[in-house]
Amino acid sequence: MGQDLTVTEVRLTPILVADPPLLNTQGVHQPYTPRLIVEVVTAGGVTGVGETYGDTKYLDLAAPLADALPGRAVSDVNALHRLAERVCGDSPEATGADAVDVGGLRGVQTTDKLRLSVVSGFEVACLDALGKTLGLPVHALLGGKVRDAVDYSAYLFYRWARHPGGAGEPDDWGAALDPAGIVAQARRFAREYGFTSFKLKGGVFEPEQEIAAVRALAAAFPGQHLRLDPNGAWSVETSLKVAKELGGVLQYLEDPASGTARMAEVAAGTDVPLATNMCVTTFAEIPEAFARGAVQVVLSDHHYWGGLQATRELAAVCRTFGVALSMHSNTHLGISLAAMTHVAAVVPNLDHACDSHYPWQTEDVITERLTFRDGRLAVSDLPGLGVELDRDRLARLHRRWLDDDGSMRDRDDAAAMRVAEPGWTTPPVPRW
Amino acid sequence: MGQDLTVTEVRLTPILVADPPLLNTQGVHQPYTPRLIVEVVTAGGVTGVGETYGDTKYLDLAAPLADALPGRAVSDVNALHRLAERVCGDSPEATGADAVDVGGLRGVQTTDKLRLSVVSGFEVACLDALGKTLGLPVHALLGGKVRDAVDYSAYLFYRWARHPGGAGEPDDWGAALDPAGIVAQARRFAREYGFTSFKLKGGVFEPEQEIAAVRALAAAFPGQHLRLDPNGAWSVETSLKVAKELGGVLQYLEDPASGTARMAEVAAGTDVPLATNMCVTTFAEIPEAFARGAVQVVLSDHHYWGGLQATRELAAVCRTFGVALSMHSNTHLGISLAAMTHVAAVVPNLDHACDSHYPWQTEDVITERLTFRDGRLAVSDLPGLGVELDRDRLARLHRRWLDDDGSMRDRDDAAAMRVAEPGWTTPPVPRW
Repeated sequence: MGQDLTVTEVRLTPILVADPPLLNTQGVHQPYTPRLIVEVVTAGGVTGVGETYGDTKYLDLAAPLADALPGRAVSDVNALHRLAERVCGDSPEATGADAVDVGGLRGVQTTDKLRLSVVSGFEVACLDALGKTLGLPVHALLGGKVRDAVDYSAYLFYRWARHPGGAGEPDDWGAALDPAGIVAQARRFAREYGFTSFKLKGGVFEPEQEIAAVRALAAAFPGQHLRLDPNGAWSVETSLKVAKELGGVLQYLEDPASGTARMAEVAAGTDVPLATNMCVTTFAEIPEAFARGAVQVVLSDHHYWGGLQATRELAAVCRTFGVALSMHSNTHLGISLAAMTHVAAVVPNLDHACDSHYPWQTEDVITERLTFRDGRLAVSDLPGLGVELDRDRLARLHRRWLDDDGSMRDRDDAAAMRVAEPGWTTPPVPRW
Repeated sequence: MGQDLTVTEVRLTPILVADPPLLNTQGVHQPYTPRLIVEVVTAGGVTGVGETYGDTKYLDLAAPLADALPGRAVSDVNALHRLAERVCGDSPEATGADAVDVGGLRGVQTTDKLRLSVVSGFEVACLDALGKTLGLPVHALLGGKVRDAVDYSAYLFYRWARHPGGAGEPDDWGAALDPAGIVAQARRFAREYGFTSFKLKGGVFEPEQEIAAVRALAAAFPGQHLRLDPNGAWSVETSLKVAKELGGVLQYLEDPASGTARMAEVAAGTDVPLATNMCVTTFAEIPEAFARGAVQVVLSDHHYWGGLQATRELAAVCRTFGVALSMHSNTHLGISLAAMTHVAAVVPNLDHACDSHYPWQTEDVITERLTFRDGRLAVSDLPGLGVELDRDRLARLHRRWLDDDGSMRDRDDAAAMRVAEPGWTTPPVPRW
């Protein structure tokens, strides 16, 4: 295997991956969620893989970046940002889309944020190729791990047993629509994966019902870490009421209200730490939010923030200002989980167990799925990310994307909800 | 050359390097300045080099770290900090020294800061060894350069022609004790190295004399970048007076007053940006200084901040908060200059030309000295730092350290000044 690090080819493979009917304040996950698999091939014959969002607007930005990459070295990851700014700037989907709402679950979208998510997929693929070439794990390319395993939390969702009309791929989790259902789901997560932190995706039902669910979790898992995340659905008043009622129970409350101003108001009125992956999602949003004390925990996501190096930099900013750090997750496969685990391994101030949707995904594009044990993932010391692309699986999920009539290619939780509840639209915030 | 990255040996070589009689507000540079050369040898047969401060208190911290390193991989640079905290914590020199004043030119000293400077020398040596093993330049180990050359500035000093009594090694720069002398010095810097930025080390004479020197530089180099750095010697009132008089001339004013409170007061009263390497020298000092708007330019120094990775993180913090970044220098040799150039090459927000004492050093421990052309240093693409240790030169400077009666082993600019001016003590601030 040669040492030549020059990129000779970039392959972009959009896929649709099965997603269960997980509920949130905007609607429900579609039966299939788009993801993009990025492969970077070097002149040395090494292929690195990355994964990011796969909606059309991301694909539109990824294509020119893929065209521009050949001839550059996979070690030149710092230069990806400027390259992307240059070549993706005029993408038709991106132009003028300064504040596109893509469901709100990751905060207001801008072209800058879309581009950073695309760059992250390329950066991870480059680092995987570099690591494979050099015989070093990705964490070593980031200065080396400071822990051998990364803690994850169970990600609990209100959910239906099946998608409306039986669409999508079945699973055996059954429905969870009340406290008992959530506790049963949590018990299975604890039993199968050993998680000792539990996060409930809220904003789905009246706050009282979700408070009851968290209380039921507290009774079932005494002393363990509990979190509630209504995705900004509540008013300041409701947020403070929930914080008061769950004050002794929650490790942190995640994005109770929308926007820095409301979050700051909530934070001023409670001792419960506030976490976010919505009001602080870019470096530009940090100064105001930190100055106003709006957040006490930043949930980073290497897709949002522009890659693994950027995540490390975010960690340094948080550390400097005494703001805690943990990690956010959206629907993702094993490549992104591996990438997340490598960067989580190098950050000294990883203060809480990370979120991951991974246990909800029954499909993957790697040969061997990653396995949570005792609520943790071991940090791989294999070259690169330590995962291998399964071309048959990739081809099958890509075929699904090709065959799709366009209804699944852009994730829209409100549209998915309309299948069950005609007339549903994304509720305005505050919803309660 | 094997790939085994395990450290098998660490060599620490304290040296004394010739330093001209450069004046500052505390006194004068000694004829010789202590530096420490760190060599890290791997099982693969590769030797990496690093350089840091060499005063006794640094050597005391470096020794236990050197003992602890064998068996670890040179790629594990993130883990160096915790290792150093563990093994250096009880160093006799460091214990209890929570606020040791080591001359004040790098701000108040703490054991944490001493330890970070030691770690930086080890981190650089590890990265050099890693890069040499992998065939990659250090900048590639930091994600790759985003520029091919780094701008430096001329570092102008008031100085004597010779050390008192003819001590030390002679040079042909002659004295510079007035505006004409400073302009002549600047002209030679511009002629020999192509610098177009000029920094005058002030705090030596009455502010009016230094204002006159800067005005003379402005007349001699119209439109070029000028800076003045009295090392915190002035009161707020004096600082504001100088800022007003030189407002149209200075690119920035560096550390006019001592401490965040005074700096904030000065900043509030002038539009001239304030730079610092004294009031913000650790991550812990950032929140207050940034919140109060005390500094507009942070002059990083990879020795202070704990290495190249930490410098990159500092750059991210500055970028996030809209504070400019450039780089500071103390007396150093080619190894540190190479390290500084690599990290300067990977930081997107390098806003101003970096400082360097390097042209004042007539001695070095590398085979081929680095050369400024057009005021810049080309970023090396050779493996590691791109410099090679000259063992004869190293041995000669180490011999000087061994032969020293102890008077030069701990830099003390006030003691050096007393040779010329008996009774001299470090002036209290504000001096003017």
